[in-house]
Amino acid sequence: MEPLQISTIALVESCYKQKFGIPRQPGLVPGARGVIRFLPEFAVPEAFDGLEQSSHIWVQFIFHGIAGLGSGSWSPRVRPPRLGGNKKAGVFATRSTYRPNSLGLSVVRLDEIDTSNGVALHVSGIDFLEGTPVVDIKPYIPYADMITEARNHLAEEPPEYLKVRFSALAEQQISCLQPCGERELKQLIIGTLQQDPRPAYQREDDRVYGTKLLGFDLNWRYLTAGDTVEVEVVGLTKL
Amino acid sequence: MEPLQISTIALVESCYKQKFGIPRQPGLVPGARGVIRFLPEFAVPEAFDGLEQSSHIWVQFIFHGIAGLGSGSWSPRVRPPRLGGNKKAGVFATRSTYRPNSLGLSVVRLDEIDTSNGVALHVSGIDFLEGTPVVDIKPYIPYADMITEARNHLAEEPPEYLKVRFSALAEQQISCLQPCGERELKQLIIGTLQQDPRPAYQREDDRVYGTKLLGFDLNWRYLTAGDTVEVEVVGLTKL
Repeated sequence: MEPLQISTIALVESCYKQKFGIPRQPGLVPGARGVIRFLPEFAVPEAFDGLEQSSHIWVQFIFHGIAGLGSGSWSPRVRPPRLGGNKKAGVFATRSTYRPNSLGLSVVRLDEIDTSNGVALHVSGIDFLEGTPVVDIKPYIPYADMITEARNHLAEEPPEYLKVRFSALAEQQISCLQPCGERELKQLIIGTLQQDPRPAYQREDDRVYGTKLLGFDLNWRYLTAGDTVEVEVVGLTKL
Repeated sequence: MEPLQISTIALVESCYKQKFGIPRQPGLVPGARGVIRFLPEFAVPEAFDGLEQSSHIWVQFIFHGIAGLGSGSWSPRVRPPRLGGNKKAGVFATRSTYRPNSLGLSVVRLDEIDTSNGVALHVSGIDFLEGTPVVDIKPYIPYADMITEARNHLAEEPPEYLKVRFSALAEQQISCLQPCGERELKQLIIGTLQQDPRPAYQREDDRVYGTKLLGFDLNWRYLTAGDTVEVEVVGLTKL
């Protein structure tokens, strides 16, 4: 069959500037915010009339920024983090990025529709990388999308959370980062790190991990005591 | 931005052979069945390993069979049937087909994964037209996809149902159509017609309407008595 052509209609401005640290499903970090900014051709305010009646939207997007991704590259079997990273499952049984067509799907909260300069949707609970190309958005329709009898035994519960604590240095840095929203920034860091973004095959407690969040380089390490793993936030530096 | 190329990975064999009569959301007609048959390149049984753990799946597809549809054609404002067909709303506030990229999204029940000859997913509660090109399938993940606090004031409730009754001729024809499953066929007809597939601007009670369902031409008309509209099934003929 002939390939289909689709167009990017919007690009995401995300608090997540690197892939490492992005929540594995949307909604897990309510404080993770972003803006879906429509390209001029699609930034037609009338096309969004009535969308303010929806609290949540579906975003259909293209996974990008992943080595080897493209229309020709996919893996029939993947190692989903939810299975501990050492058991394989079929790619269609997961939401893995290594899928044909690299199509992603996330439901996010719609906080604001800004039509003052083009069209920008302010959204939260996101799991998008900065610069993600969006190919469609649709309203969440509770009576059709909330399948109360649905079961998925591969992913029954949200992931367990680690405890996150802030080092004295990090506390000091956060309080200096005003007016970025001290409380909001802490919530975003806690939400992001408590899910343990490390791949399951790479859990070295003495290593310092890092990613880019908002306008900052965030560094942290893991502290193990007995059965408990805590995250200590080491520090933040402006990008 | 450059257009993206995506590939059809599967085609739908649907009980709905024509657009007229297709439910306006998935899940409204539990007896509406179909098969998602994967193209040889993607019919890799390992890629579906673990999907049997999911009761429901998301299907991302391309709307087809609609005049004027294509990557370049979309309408910023549409008349959603839920608003009575005479009020307009922005296309992004609806699930209308007249959207950029013609991308559709439906959650359906996964009844069976058949890998005896390629890969075929048997699904129900569908709203797909025969021959619909599928570009991705993903498991439904209840903890991420069931947004219990979500609200959509444009589409708060499922549509109201009409009463469906079978004419003597239709009853006789249905009982002759064995072994097609008499009870199942009646449920499919009731489910399909009780939602009133007529566009809101075209509600002539004396007209006979028709569509193709499974292997049959289905004809029906509307009977108005007081405030009540009933559907009388006129007849079925084999295609």
